[in-house]
Amino acid sequence: MSDYRKEHDSLGELPVPDDAYFGIQTLRARENFHITGITMSHYPRLIEALAYVKQAAAEANSSLGLLDETKSRAICRACEEVVSGKLHDQFVVDVIQGGAGTSANMNANEVICNRALEIMGYEKGQYEFLHPLNDVNMSQSTNDVYPSALNIAIILDLRALMEAMLYLQKSFMRKGKEFSEIIKMGRTQLQDAVPMTLGQEFNAWAVMIGEDVQRVDEAEDLVYEINMGATAIGTGLNSHPDYTRTVTEKLVQLTTLNLKSSPDLVEATQDTGVYVQLSGVLKRVAVKLSKICNDLRLLSSGPRCGLNEINLPPMQPGSSIMPGKVNPVIPEVVNQVAFAIVGSDVTVSMASEAGQLELNVMEPVIGFSLFQSINMLRRACITLADKCVSGITANAERCRDMVEHSIGLVTALNPYIGYEASADIAKEAMRTGGSVYQIVLDRGILSEEELEDILKPENMVKPRYVHRR
Amino acid sequence: MSDYRKEHDSLGELPVPDDAYFGIQTLRARENFHITGITMSHYPRLIEALAYVKQAAAEANSSLGLLDETKSRAICRACEEVVSGKLHDQFVVDVIQGGAGTSANMNANEVICNRALEIMGYEKGQYEFLHPLNDVNMSQSTNDVYPSALNIAIILDLRALMEAMLYLQKSFMRKGKEFSEIIKMGRTQLQDAVPMTLGQEFNAWAVMIGEDVQRVDEAEDLVYEINMGATAIGTGLNSHPDYTRTVTEKLVQLTTLNLKSSPDLVEATQDTGVYVQLSGVLKRVAVKLSKICNDLRLLSSGPRCGLNEINLPPMQPGSSIMPGKVNPVIPEVVNQVAFAIVGSDVTVSMASEAGQLELNVMEPVIGFSLFQSINMLRRACITLADKCVSGITANAERCRDMVEHSIGLVTALNPYIGYEASADIAKEAMRTGGSVYQIVLDRGILSEEELEDILKPENMVKPRYVHRR
Amino acid sequence: MSDYRKEHDSLGELPVPDDAYFGIQTLRARENFHITGITMSHYPRLIEALAYVKQAAAEANSSLGLLDETKSRAICRACEEVVSGKLHDQFVVDVIQGGAGTSANMNANEVICNRALEIMGYEKGQYEFLHPLNDVNMSQSTNDVYPSALNIAIILDLRALMEAMLYLQKSFMRKGKEFSEIIKMGRTQLQDAVPMTLGQEFNAWAVMIGEDVQRVDEAEDLVYEINMGATAIGTGLNSHPDYTRTVTEKLVQLTTLNLKSSPDLVEATQDTGVYVQLSGVLKRVAVKLSKICNDLRLLSSGPRCGLNEINLPPMQPGSSIMPGKVNPVIPEVVNQVAFAIVGSDVTVSMASEAGQLELNVMEPVIGFSLFQSINMLRRACITLADKCVSGITANAERCRDMVEHSIGLVTALNPYIGYEASADIAKEAMRTGGSVYQIVLDRGILSEEELEDILKPENMVKPRYVHRR
Amino acid sequence: MSDYRKEHDSLGELPVPDDAYFGIQTLRARENFHITGITMSHYPRLIEALAYVKQAAAEANSSLGLLDETKSRAICRACEEVVSGKLHDQFVVDVIQGGAGTSANMNANEVICNRALEIMGYEKGQYEFLHPLNDVNMSQSTNDVYPSALNIAIILDLRALMEAMLYLQKSFMRKGKEFSEIIKMGRTQLQDAVPMTLGQEFNAWAVMIGEDVQRVDEAEDLVYEINMGATAIGTGLNSHPDYTRTVTEKLVQLTTLNLKSSPDLVEATQDTGVYVQLSGVLKRVAVKLSKICNDLRLLSSGPRCGLNEINLPPMQPGSSIMPGKVNPVIPEVVNQVAFAIVGSDVTVSMASEAGQLELNVMEPVIGFSLFQSINMLRRACITLADKCVSGITANAERCRDMVEHSIGLVTALNPYIGYEASADIAKEAMRTGGSVYQIVLDRGILSEEELEDILKPENMVKPRYVHRR
Repeated sequence: MSDYRKEHDSLGELPVPDDAYFGIQTLRARENFHITGITMSHYPRLIEALAYVKQAAAEANSSLGLLDETKSRAICRACEEVVSGKLHDQFVVDVIQGGAGTSANMNANEVICNRALEIMGYEKGQYEFLHPLNDVNMSQSTNDVYPSALNIAIILDLRALMEAMLYLQKSFMRKGKEFSEIIKMGRTQLQDAVPMTLGQEFNAWAVMIGEDVQRVDEAEDLVYEINMGATAIGTGLNSHPDYTRTVTEKLVQLTTLNLKSSPDLVEATQDTGVYVQLSGVLKRVAVKLSKICNDLRLLSSGPRCGLNEINLPPMQPGSSIMPGKVNPVIPEVVNQVAFAIVGSDVTVSMASEAGQLELNVMEPVIGFSLFQSINMLRRACITLADKCVSGITANAERCRDMVEHSIGLVTALNPYIGYEASADIAKEAMRTGGSVYQIVLDRGILSEEELEDILKPENMVKPRYVHRR
Repeated sequence: MSDYRKEHDSLGELPVPDDAYFGIQTLRARENFHITGITMSHYPRLIEALAYVKQAAAEANSSLGLLDETKSRAICRACEEVVSGKLHDQFVVDVIQGGAGTSANMNANEVICNRALEIMGYEKGQYEFLHPLNDVNMSQSTNDVYPSALNIAIILDLRALMEAMLYLQKSFMRKGKEFSEIIKMGRTQLQDAVPMTLGQEFNAWAVMIGEDVQRVDEAEDLVYEINMGATAIGTGLNSHPDYTRTVTEKLVQLTTLNLKSSPDLVEATQDTGVYVQLSGVLKRVAVKLSKICNDLRLLSSGPRCGLNEINLPPMQPGSSIMPGKVNPVIPEVVNQVAFAIVGSDVTVSMASEAGQLELNVMEPVIGFSLFQSINMLRRACITLADKCVSGITANAERCRDMVEHSIGLVTALNPYIGYEASADIAKEAMRTGGSVYQIVLDRGILSEEELEDILKPENMVKPRYVHRR
Repeated sequence: MSDYRKEHDSLGELPVPDDAYFGIQTLRARENFHITGITMSHYPRLIEALAYVKQAAAEANSSLGLLDETKSRAICRACEEVVSGKLHDQFVVDVIQGGAGTSANMNANEVICNRALEIMGYEKGQYEFLHPLNDVNMSQSTNDVYPSALNIAIILDLRALMEAMLYLQKSFMRKGKEFSEIIKMGRTQLQDAVPMTLGQEFNAWAVMIGEDVQRVDEAEDLVYEINMGATAIGTGLNSHPDYTRTVTEKLVQLTTLNLKSSPDLVEATQDTGVYVQLSGVLKRVAVKLSKICNDLRLLSSGPRCGLNEINLPPMQPGSSIMPGKVNPVIPEVVNQVAFAIVGSDVTVSMASEAGQLELNVMEPVIGFSLFQSINMLRRACITLADKCVSGITANAERCRDMVEHSIGLVTALNPYIGYEASADIAKEAMRTGGSVYQIVLDRGILSEEELEDILKPENMVKPRYVHRR
Repeated sequence: MSDYRKEHDSLGELPVPDDAYFGIQTLRARENFHITGITMSHYPRLIEALAYVKQAAAEANSSLGLLDETKSRAICRACEEVVSGKLHDQFVVDVIQGGAGTSANMNANEVICNRALEIMGYEKGQYEFLHPLNDVNMSQSTNDVYPSALNIAIILDLRALMEAMLYLQKSFMRKGKEFSEIIKMGRTQLQDAVPMTLGQEFNAWAVMIGEDVQRVDEAEDLVYEINMGATAIGTGLNSHPDYTRTVTEKLVQLTTLNLKSSPDLVEATQDTGVYVQLSGVLKRVAVKLSKICNDLRLLSSGPRCGLNEINLPPMQPGSSIMPGKVNPVIPEVVNQVAFAIVGSDVTVSMASEAGQLELNVMEPVIGFSLFQSINMLRRACITLADKCVSGITANAERCRDMVEHSIGLVTALNPYIGYEASADIAKEAMRTGGSVYQIVLDRGILSEEELEDILKPENMVKPRYVHRR
């Protein structure tokens, strides 16, 4: 009695563990690619997407009279089990793999085939009754299956990302409202500029994230184009003339995603522009998020030797040597996520550039990079919202105090006394340490009443009719 | 009699050459920034755009009763002269500069002011009659002028880029048609795959470029949003409540571009997401173009020890030591442009990430990088079209010959005899050096007639009804 | 009876699972950082390095009379257990974390403290007898512990990398020897150039890798500089004047690595230049490896429609649709690793640039990126050697055949008949399809004997005395 | 009488302006490559280096009896003129060019040939008396000439860079001394940490730059390896067996640089690892410089609403709308240079990765990127030293004030009262706004004398014996 079954492929024969749903080609791939130590099962959406694709193909092949009913039904049931998550642990190949995803595709073919064989009443490995290539992979090639599945998985992940971004946006928006009356000093180039409200600041970040959601959404739109029916190089060799249309329709039904067939399958099979585009947009989101986190860290710097305008909620003791120190650990981790994503974007660009002729063989590292970026970004958004933004409080008095002592107030005098006279007042304030208000009064340039009206911070945070003297 | 006039600013007094239209602040900036040795005048669109902005502001200020008619008219005439190119040599500050573009803005303010003074009958430097800040810069800040002008200049450059891309696309399309009957071997992972036409290959590249034009177009759409009226930090301090609307309308009239005011000016003033987005799309175009050029170089490799499917037109003797060698110099230079653009994208990302609080002070390097990328890309497209693609010829016989001797033909047998039997034939062909056709015949698996039908290359370049035996 | 013990820190109290060696701060960190889903235990060298550091500190503190003997001994025993791998599963914080590694440091402090408490006969959590901060972290700060541990871990990983690179180098060298007599056509710009041996080609790659080992070795040298004793910001606050020297010595003894104390601890604590340097060198290795793999894929392209000079060993069936196709999956996966590493380098650069004032808080993502790159690179080298290079065979006949039919031979005529005459012959060969040899003979320019001597491929692969006529 | 002379090459005939020293191949190249609009003459070191190479080759060929004396002498004199800068305007090809530098090499060959012809008493274009290829390019190929010249030019540029870096380092060092008594608060993660001196801070930056000079120096060492004698692909075809040694010696004499011949010329001709290495080191310098500039901007933030510890010298009025505002424009421009260099590094990496088989055809963009980075970096260092660092002043009182009111002082109590008690004091200080000093006194934990000793800032900026109670 043996714990192994024998399987063979064009390179020879190997023993496969009896309880494994994957087969010989998966085994070879697992052996060949020890790279990241992270298996496909780390990105479950891709597995589900592969199962959707296989099921759609089986249904299409069956409806075109190419695959017999029994086989098709068994394949479909096996695919449903994969989608449900029951067989995820059978997807054992490394996420970074040579072969343009062939191993991922074969892993899916073999797992589905063997499970379907059981459903049909046979044993695993009895490929004479159902074949991973001739049946499960019928009318398909890795070169249409893998990118199509990638796209479906990416769409699912992107939707979760956009939700997280909107969640974060709301968090900023709420604070924008909460802080709408707090007057503070705006800063450009880290130098005191002119007054604004803290609410305007938080609100600007909310707007920023909102725009980014739109950009992600537009990029996602492009991912709906798939190349099922392309087979090896886009010419559709070995596929039925109605197959492309049929399999795409089936896939739309199964996933409820509005997938479309690419108008030029030769182009679609070699082109990875959509991934570069998406990666660029993710980078944009990352860069902006990092900018916001830099700002949060700046504004909460202190408590006594920094700007100290806001307080981030303390999440953990900050230092193993400095008691009482509380650090902005959440924005810091988001910054790091951002840097990882910008790096990933370069990876995607290089991988895309390396495509040759009819195929881009570097798709696995592209997929891996995108999944990693999307997922880290999603977690970063939720973490930032829940563990930082929502608990931020403002030091209103400190904020106002800085405005009143600032020299930047002088800017509001421009329309009344001109740039050069204003600059002169600023210079004296700098030299003497005096206040703009007092210097203007002392010089008798404007009346107290006028001054109060002009320099009232609340009057400076929006456009305003200027009544020149 | 002196060749210099004296000008002063808040830091003191300096002599300015009498014939210079720029003034003391431009002088300081030129002194401060010796970085690239490339002055603003290298990017004329930016100068023109600054003049449009200044003119629109003058018109708006005048129509709101803030600036008197005479001054406004003089400013406008001076701006028109700048747009016409007459004063480009007066824009002398380095393209990479500190100060978030303040020096570029001041260079424009001073040149326009001094020219306008002349128009009004005064001499350069008589700022008591027209002031670079109080008048030319009225209701403005560098922080709205500079990015708005950047956007206008970028739009103008992008339009020229898209034209060049369409031109290149057509070039590929024409070849796609010309080569539509040439049967050749498709390759995946550099290994012989299955047949296709050379036309399909060239056509795919045309489609690729066409998609990229769409992406550039979408990215361009975002650039139309400007932040005039934001003044220092987006709060609109010192601007008339109707100014934002008015100046934007004037700018639309002057440029005939469909510019729009940003819905949140605080956000717009600190956000550089649009540049990151655009840069990402330019990178996409670059990456794809590079991929295409890699393919052109591969397919034209040889002449005797390479693929040799196509011939690129010889543009120059290829080697200083190897007589008769002709190199693919045009695709090679396009590859290099692409690498420069991918690098630039990282620059833009980092510069964008470095924005702090109410402003991104790194805009000059962003602008410089984008102008450089867009212009190089445009020239690369035209060069590639004119000096390479349009002169490509095909070696049809060689192409067909390779198909007929290929093993990849075996793929077409799958639906008839199954994957494993096909693989077996492929293996024998490899081992013996024989042809797929002959081995199948010898084994008596299919009749000659069937075989001819199945293996006819023309039957393999598209989907097809399979009549299983 | 409870399964939890209560622990508290400055933020409050939390229940910690009774069997956990980590404590409250680790718990908070685990809660705070859900980012990659990859815990520190994925990089065991870092855990070991932290234990070395803690042990060295305990020994130093004890020898300076700051920590009592019993405590020190218990800490040391606990550290030894950590090094041995017994407690790796207790290191549960995410590899990407805010706080500059504070959570990693606290994870180590707590695990070591609780294990040491057990060793001392107490229960976990009885910090009154041994304290994670006052005792285990004595004279330390995250800001010297974390980077010092990072460096130690990196050194250990780099050693393994260099071994793998040397292993790969040998593999290429062996093939260099094996192929030393095989004449083939050299190519520049993918165009036929002049003859060389296949051995020269493989040997060049071996040399390339050898140089890279030297560069990694030099970069490694820089990693030996550590900043123990810096405490919070490099000023050594709260550390004994002899502590830096003592702890460094202890660490050298424990690790047998030639670690050195940084000459300026303030600088060392904020500077991450060494990581940027190392990352740049790893990128260099990656880029070169990728270039070699591109070449391997090119030279093995075919089998019938490509260069087909060499055969890579088949590692797995190459295609789910094209029977008999065998793809260069191993070089392909190495290419992808390379792209990931180039991307990571950008991440490291940005993270390094983001350091502020006395500390770089982004060290965790730097460490994570470096570990990932080093480990992937190591696995890629071994994979490439074992599963590809060592099994490569040459198609000697095909190689020689291409040389003999090439036009590049004409280059060797330069010294005899001049560049222009040679170019003319090349042109005729191109036009007529004839051979260089025959054309020269036909034109009667050189005697048959002369020609044979000049054009003998073996005479063309090295410098040679030219006897002009 | 005509203003043109006719020249021909293997592609045909073209008119060349009579007064041009360049010839037909330069003309074609100028026509082919309209990419950056920047010609080789923008990087004069490269032109000089090409002349050195050509002269060394002529001398070597002559001493080996391959080139007659008269020709050699004329070539050498022409080369000397090129080095002296007389003919720089004749180097008209675009810096980014296809053909692996063939056009740059041909530009040099033609200019030198035509000038040498004049020296010999002939007219430009009379190549029957001296030939650009047969004579000026004798024993050479672009593939050894171009990279060797690149290396020489890079060395010259790097020396100037290192000088500039040392100059900047001294500038920081001087400030380090000047500020050695100014007590200030150190910050980690932008949060108040523990005291240090401002001198320690500036000194750390000086140390940082000093280390970077060492790294540049080490990288420069690698650039001395050249591949003269490699000819087309490193096999030395058409070169005399003694040529490599001879030409390298001549080049050492001419340049007084310690150049060495590469041990494996096949490897050297295809490998661009040295450029990747160098680029990585330049990026390191850039990243560190950017970090320093970020810090300078942070510490000088304010004047009233920021940290305001130091004052940067005002270089220009800072704002077109905010009178009196002075911005940190010099650090800002250095930041931007740094971003450009990090981007360039990606360009170099991709270009290096794109090398194929016996040559890297992308060397022009590599050279261009390196020249640009080195030169911008050099100018940035000098600008930063002269226009910023040297004029920095400190606000000593403000610095000390912040220390005395800080909570971070509590860290120094750790060794006396333990982490948790210290944390408790910190918390109370935060809550009440009180001072650490007073709270400790009030709680009667330490005597006034003890406290004064422990909390004296001067006692906190270095290690110190702790006398526990």
